[in-house]
Amino acid sequence: MLTFTNILQRIENEVKAFKLDYQPQNLYTPIEYILSLGGKRIRPAFVLIANNIYNDTIDDAIPAALSLEVFHNFTLLHDDLMDEADMRRNKPTVHKLWNANSAILSGDAMLIVAYQLISQSRPEHLKKLLDLFTQTALEICGGQQYDMEFELRTDVEEDEYIEMIRLKTAVLLACGLKMGAIIGGASKEDANHLYEYGLNIGLAFQLKDDLLDVYGNPATFGKNIGGDILSNKKTFLLISALKHASERQKKVLYNWFETKTFTSSEKIDSFRSIYDELKIKDMTEVKIHHLYNIALSHLTQLNVPEERLTVLKEVSNDLLYRES
Amino acid sequence: MLTFTNILQRIENEVKAFKLDYQPQNLYTPIEYILSLGGKRIRPAFVLIANNIYNDTIDDAIPAALSLEVFHNFTLLHDDLMDEADMRRNKPTVHKLWNANSAILSGDAMLIVAYQLISQSRPEHLKKLLDLFTQTALEICGGQQYDMEFELRTDVEEDEYIEMIRLKTAVLLACGLKMGAIIGGASKEDANHLYEYGLNIGLAFQLKDDLLDVYGNPATFGKNIGGDILSNKKTFLLISALKHASERQKKVLYNWFETKTFTSSEKIDSFRSIYDELKIKDMTEVKIHHLYNIALSHLTQLNVPEERLTVLKEVSNDLLYRES
Repeated sequence: MLTFTNILQRIENEVKAFKLDYQPQNLYTPIEYILSLGGKRIRPAFVLIANNIYNDTIDDAIPAALSLEVFHNFTLLHDDLMDEADMRRNKPTVHKLWNANSAILSGDAMLIVAYQLISQSRPEHLKKLLDLFTQTALEICGGQQYDMEFELRTDVEEDEYIEMIRLKTAVLLACGLKMGAIIGGASKEDANHLYEYGLNIGLAFQLKDDLLDVYGNPATFGKNIGGDILSNKKTFLLISALKHASERQKKVLYNWFETKTFTSSEKIDSFRSIYDELKIKDMTEVKIHHLYNIALSHLTQLNVPEERLTVLKEVSNDLLYRES
Repeated sequence: MLTFTNILQRIENEVKAFKLDYQPQNLYTPIEYILSLGGKRIRPAFVLIANNIYNDTIDDAIPAALSLEVFHNFTLLHDDLMDEADMRRNKPTVHKLWNANSAILSGDAMLIVAYQLISQSRPEHLKKLLDLFTQTALEICGGQQYDMEFELRTDVEEDEYIEMIRLKTAVLLACGLKMGAIIGGASKEDANHLYEYGLNIGLAFQLKDDLLDVYGNPATFGKNIGGDILSNKKTFLLISALKHASERQKKVLYNWFETKTFTSSEKIDSFRSIYDELKIKDMTEVKIHHLYNIALSHLTQLNVPEERLTVLKEVSNDLLYRES
């Protein structure tokens, strides 16, 4: 079996070797740019890790793994344009470096390239992989739609938020594991348990992201601490805080929503002290552990020797207890 | 065999019956809107016409036909946003009626739905159809990229223009015919001849469009006459005019390119009188006939009884000698 380091190395090699030698160049250069910015590569890793549970060689799963990385970066490219984000991974976003039209059109081409890669999978898996990928891709568009709609609301409930992050984030991790399992010849039951595992890990992963935005280590966290607070993003932390807040605390938070000019650190400190008073950090960590346990319960139902699951467990653990 | 009227009726019924009962509604309403605006439905018609050459029942080709109509409307949706077009088929465009983000995201979902439809084709054709569709879709993105780049240039050559419209317009018609042929069980040779036929008809179709912009009947032409002239669009007519113009005529045209405020009718009349002096209308019609003849030469090489080609010939003829 491969180690996580082996798998990440393989992904980097495959991404580097993946050349889009098509014309016109101006359509494909932004695609190569965004793929070169790196990132955790967790989605292709999940495809290969799940595949490696069932298969010692992971070659058959490479196109699907690359496809999910291309697809994920397509969503980042279009989301950054929709969200008017200037920076991604400490580099200018595509619509900043080129322009909005480039971001739209090169993004479209990336989505097509993602399908092109899926289509390179073995014919006996093609239909299943396509249907899973299409369902997932539509769900992710739905997640982004909800996310944009939630920006205009202050009454987003926890259930709605969990559904939004299920669609926007969790289903792609789940899809990655299920794809790897399908290509590896797993039973339908195993493939579905891995999907459920990925879904719950994905939810927990996003809650951890929400947590790091407030309580992360500024030295290691990739983005600026407090970005979600500054933009009034309805994260799990803010939604929980609004749910449990006293009238006084609610008033402070709503006041900040309305305030357009402020000192960043002051707003962040104010939110954080309310979160501290309400023990929002503990509450979020409990939720993360809970989701992690649901996820693990699906692993115990797989029909494979436990030692085949070492890498998957190690990676998930690292993701949920990461500091950046 | 079905008549063209039968086929168009079937397409309208299928488009009407095609419901996207997905959530969130705000993601799918713009898709239903743009699909309801109508249009010639020529791309799905080409799929079904080609299929009907080989098969008396066209049911197997319906998903692919719908897919091309959804895909075509996806390109219109994103292109209208990129081109900042306010109207499409006498109705407000999606980004006008909703907003730019809706146009981006619902467009993305449409592209995914197009693949979902292709995937509903019979498994034995799936891989071939997918590869053809993906190649075509990437070519169309390339065509739009060239089209946008040409807007910033005044030195576009005829060859470059033909290559741009091949990518942006012709390959989708060619793809439609080839898909219908593949699903109908045509030989590889027949499928390729139909592709070449579609390519040449597609080029001629675009040149006819360029011609109608200047010489169309305002009462029946769907858009305002002279739109291409007002926006300095490098159409086949303008490129040919610039190629054959005297120094005086060139000066007049370049002068117009620089002039930002003008009376529309004056600019249109000025272009038209130069086109008339240079016999650009005849020149374009000769080119259209030439492409049509190349197209027809591919039909003669098909391994089918001639009477199976009646509808295809009739429709192509109508397209190239249409007045709107």
